[in-house]
Amino acid sequence: MHISKKAQQCGLSPMRKFHPLAVEAVKNGKKIYHLNIGQPDIPTPRAFFDAVRAFASPVLAYAASPGVPALLDAVRGYYARLGVQLDEDDVLITTGGSEALMMLMLSILDEGDEVIVPEPFYPNYATFIYAAGGVIRPVPTRPEEGYRYADRAKFEALINDRTRALLITTPGNPTGVILTPEEMAMLKDVAKAHNLYLISDEVYREFTYGGEGLRTMASFDDAAENVVIVDSVSKRFSACGARVGALITRNRALSQQCMKFCQGRLSVATIDQVGAAALYGIDSSYFEETRQEYKRRRDTVVRKLREIPGVICEEPHGAFYLMAALPIDDADRFQEFLLRDFSDHGETVMFAPGASFYATPGKGRNEIRIAYILNCRDLERSIELLGLGIEAYNRR
Amino acid sequence: MHISKKAQQCGLSPMRKFHPLAVEAVKNGKKIYHLNIGQPDIPTPRAFFDAVRAFASPVLAYAASPGVPALLDAVRGYYARLGVQLDEDDVLITTGGSEALMMLMLSILDEGDEVIVPEPFYPNYATFIYAAGGVIRPVPTRPEEGYRYADRAKFEALINDRTRALLITTPGNPTGVILTPEEMAMLKDVAKAHNLYLISDEVYREFTYGGEGLRTMASFDDAAENVVIVDSVSKRFSACGARVGALITRNRALSQQCMKFCQGRLSVATIDQVGAAALYGIDSSYFEETRQEYKRRRDTVVRKLREIPGVICEEPHGAFYLMAALPIDDADRFQEFLLRDFSDHGETVMFAPGASFYATPGKGRNEIRIAYILNCRDLERSIELLGLGIEAYNRR
Repeated sequence: MHISKKAQQCGLSPMRKFHPLAVEAVKNGKKIYHLNIGQPDIPTPRAFFDAVRAFASPVLAYAASPGVPALLDAVRGYYARLGVQLDEDDVLITTGGSEALMMLMLSILDEGDEVIVPEPFYPNYATFIYAAGGVIRPVPTRPEEGYRYADRAKFEALINDRTRALLITTPGNPTGVILTPEEMAMLKDVAKAHNLYLISDEVYREFTYGGEGLRTMASFDDAAENVVIVDSVSKRFSACGARVGALITRNRALSQQCMKFCQGRLSVATIDQVGAAALYGIDSSYFEETRQEYKRRRDTVVRKLREIPGVICEEPHGAFYLMAALPIDDADRFQEFLLRDFSDHGETVMFAPGASFYATPGKGRNEIRIAYILNCRDLERSIELLGLGIEAYNRR
Repeated sequence: MHISKKAQQCGLSPMRKFHPLAVEAVKNGKKIYHLNIGQPDIPTPRAFFDAVRAFASPVLAYAASPGVPALLDAVRGYYARLGVQLDEDDVLITTGGSEALMMLMLSILDEGDEVIVPEPFYPNYATFIYAAGGVIRPVPTRPEEGYRYADRAKFEALINDRTRALLITTPGNPTGVILTPEEMAMLKDVAKAHNLYLISDEVYREFTYGGEGLRTMASFDDAAENVVIVDSVSKRFSACGARVGALITRNRALSQQCMKFCQGRLSVATIDQVGAAALYGIDSSYFEETRQEYKRRRDTVVRKLREIPGVICEEPHGAFYLMAALPIDDADRFQEFLLRDFSDHGETVMFAPGASFYATPGKGRNEIRIAYILNCRDLERSIELLGLGIEAYNRR
């Protein structure tokens, strides 16, 4: 039976292969600290659940394809507070940021078309790009430089007549890199100069730890045709399971193409949209508290990592991830070792091996991504275990 | 800015073009009877809302990519009651049947690969097939034959080395055609003989009016590699806004490819899955009541349609749609006329013009799809308006 080339090119989640080993470890009585997933432990604001419980329509009907009016208004209001005025037609509500990315790629990529993406990048970008027949052209970075990528020459060196878009994440997953306003303007200029889409995944916008404030590529009025924002309530409100995101662009030709896919899948889940609309009304103190909590976690992880000899780790400025290079040969084998052959007082630790965040074969093999989504005490212990694990692994 | 060829090939909803005219008509005081959409008016069983309200986790977290265990179990239990034993890995929960179709097409179609689809068909099939770079090869039918399509020779005449799948809907949207067990077996044999996927969209399974019972292509144990079921709670439980569907196949190579796309989009909305799982526990009297109600509606529409001279309409056996050929030149122009230039006691009617249900250019121009999703009194009046409208249109 035929399987498409594009599906074959996509990969199963790299986390999946360690799942049986993790199950086995737990069965053997080991406690595992999970730094491998981006699921926040912060409670979802009650406003979501209150709105869902108050939903009173007897028929759970399809919502309108571009989204329910209350949520479209809430998103536009949120952007207005960032100084960005959006028309109703500039916003399409999507099933998570994921669907926004899938619709985008299907709308702009023909087979062999290229997207320039700084690496390491969120691995599912590859799925969306490959699904549309596209090709990833990675912008190289280095752990020693904190994975910063905003170098005009590096981007322009990769542009050719098949290039369709630049795809960046700021604040970044997996690196925590935040673009400065100057870097944002530079990338916008590159996109304009070469007539490319600038797809800016800004789902971690609120997660900044140096007073950077809330930035968006949508602020550039002179690049309205180029800029596309991928947004989501998942991280902003710790509501990952709502699967409510948005595709935001003033490029009407593009949004009309994406609308075809919105209509094709009919609508986004109705009550989740009702809940999400309510989230946009919560008090801003929520963000400040969340930010402080993640900042403490970030500081804890970085401090503890720097106590481990040979680890290369620049302080990340945003999101809730960091990449680190470890003094080991292979993070996959190291993870296997930690689950199978290592424990300290019956405990071990999981992270995301780095290679899956790279498109370039062989890169990231000694790197890992850490999601700092545990409380500070557990994070301290996790990184202690990581250090003990490295010692044991290199001694074996 | 570049737009992909596949996106350009997709169309905006054919309903959309009449929306401004409908808004205008309402503004002018006209009442519109809507037979143009497939949104049932049947209340969603309370079990859904009760389960959603009882959701007590403080964090609305991502669900597992293939679905929450309670829902996977509920779907497997439902199929077990149909006599079909499914493994857990045979079921992937999707964001509506729509996402199941999209994942399927991305998994099996390379550019230029063909899918054989009886026409008229659900128009969004085209979006999913085109999004994957595929081509539709339509199986022709005739209103005079009640749009029946299960003719082995017609299917085999369309098979070539680029054919990847047969895609059928039973009970059918837009025609209401239900395959007999013999026809199902015949299509299964064709798929087996030519090594093709047999994609069976069975989301209207419960909507049968001749005592046909609940049928599924999944019953054919000898075609486990070929058969893929598209399923959904949308129509079964009048829960369209939940966006909960399923992709069901025993073909492990295929389900593993689809799993890549499941993982790529992370998960289906969590609380909707919790609500959907509860729906599978409701009393079966719900289906009997719903079936009786739709049967009355079907009978009403067919009886009234047959009073209109020149209308060709065979009695549909399932779903809640019918196609009819009208004694008019062009259903698009007729719909425009009904909205703009016609009314009877201030009332008019909307339906779905037939051409958009065909891939063959020019076909279906004098046909319409009627969704019988209003109460019988409103349906009587709607078809009366249709008849008066035809008279007035042909007199103009």
